[in-house]
Amino acid sequence: MDQIIGLDIGGTKISGIVYDSKNVLRELTMATPKNLAGFKQAVEKLISLLKAGRQIKGLGIGLAGIVNDKGTVIYSPNMKFLDNFNLGKFCKDFNFKKVQIDNDANCFTLAEARLGRGRGYKNFVGLTLGTGVGGGIICGKELFRGSRGSAGEVGHIMADFKYDSEHYYQAARDKKDYKKMGEVVGLLFANIINLLDVEAIVLGGTVAIKYSKDFLPYALKIVKKHVVNKNNLPKIVVSNLKNSGSLGAALLVI
Amino acid sequence: MDQIIGLDIGGTKISGIVYDSKNVLRELTMATPKNLAGFKQAVEKLISLLKAGRQIKGLGIGLAGIVNDKGTVIYSPNMKFLDNFNLGKFCKDFNFKKVQIDNDANCFTLAEARLGRGRGYKNFVGLTLGTGVGGGIICGKELFRGSRGSAGEVGHIMADFKYDSEHYYQAARDKKDYKKMGEVVGLLFANIINLLDVEAIVLGGTVAIKYSKDFLPYALKIVKKHVVNKNNLPKIVVSNLKNSGSLGAALLVI
Repeated sequence: MDQIIGLDIGGTKISGIVYDSKNVLRELTMATPKNLAGFKQAVEKLISLLKAGRQIKGLGIGLAGIVNDKGTVIYSPNMKFLDNFNLGKFCKDFNFKKVQIDNDANCFTLAEARLGRGRGYKNFVGLTLGTGVGGGIICGKELFRGSRGSAGEVGHIMADFKYDSEHYYQAARDKKDYKKMGEVVGLLFANIINLLDVEAIVLGGTVAIKYSKDFLPYALKIVKKHVVNKNNLPKIVVSNLKNSGSLGAALLVI
Repeated sequence: MDQIIGLDIGGTKISGIVYDSKNVLRELTMATPKNLAGFKQAVEKLISLLKAGRQIKGLGIGLAGIVNDKGTVIYSPNMKFLDNFNLGKFCKDFNFKKVQIDNDANCFTLAEARLGRGRGYKNFVGLTLGTGVGGGIICGKELFRGSRGSAGEVGHIMADFKYDSEHYYQAARDKKDYKKMGEVVGLLFANIINLLDVEAIVLGGTVAIKYSKDFLPYALKIVKKHVVNKNNLPKIVVSNLKNSGSLGAALLVI
């Protein structure tokens, strides 16, 4: 089977895998550099280490930010040095047959749809809680990217007239205030359900996986209170898929 | 061409048309009764007046509320007497070949997609400002209804941790405070755009049509501030389609 490299590029670390549509054959992680020159070097090195003599057919990248259809980074709050960098063009030099780049939360959501807890749902939202808050939308079993590739920016749904959800999420996380975190996340759930009436929300990201038992009970209370259609409420589940970010990135080119 | 009856049932009035896929042949409006018995009589009378000897093939209804796929009203805040009423079953007695019932904002959005300012867009949101705040989502040129038929409940997106957008909208409208109304509506626009990245938002409803020039400038400021992808911002346009609610209802069965 064809072997694919999947990279998950976040503000803290870059994870890469080699995937053959069945198994993860290799897996590497490095810290995210702080500037563009370092970033280019790191990506080049990671790809060459993952390759290591293998025949690789394609490269998929999930990036914490908004990437347009030309592969240019439009917005990456935790890697500001990437703003306006044409990652797609940079990746052409690696000479893979196929290269695809998308938002990291979209990749997470795609992996959940094909291999994880999103299987079987026609419409669901993947929601990642980590450094920031990310989201991806599956509509009719396919990723919905919107008109400019920036659909699913869940963290930027406003929590009030002043700040977005990500702002309050990060404050609560830093204080380890799980009640407040549950309220912020629950409000997000309610908004997503009232607007999209999805079958499920699949949670992922380091914070969700580690602390969901602490904040989810508070979040579910908010959902019950604010979701207007209370019949047969959508499922809210936590991911149990390893490497979901880099797996989803690989799936972009499979 | 086949003739269809379209009814737009709102908290204040019920409008009905006869439509032949090209022209509105007849048009009637009556006040919405305050109880179920009066409501049944009114709908029966309106349909018989619209029919008036014509050969009618189908009936489409848009209702201000959530209706499940069995035609039962699940939630109608401005017509509470309809809660749990099986409108679909009631309509069977009229012996039309085809009956379809949907949310009124979905019908508005469908009419805009086929005949109004939503033509040409693949993905857009229809947003109605009237007694309440309603919404409909066009995804891939089709109405997206969600898993329980309640997608697009835009008015119930929370404006803060306490109240939803509709709450603040109604307060601002009643005070004729167009700056505040613009801020509430702008926050809704920003949330919709950040989550769905649609190509456009099409505004309708009596309040939007009458006062958009007063509140839209404030709303657009909020959009510019809070939408994260600022490249090529989605269009925000106001409907100029007459009878969009009842037209959309008729389109349900065409």
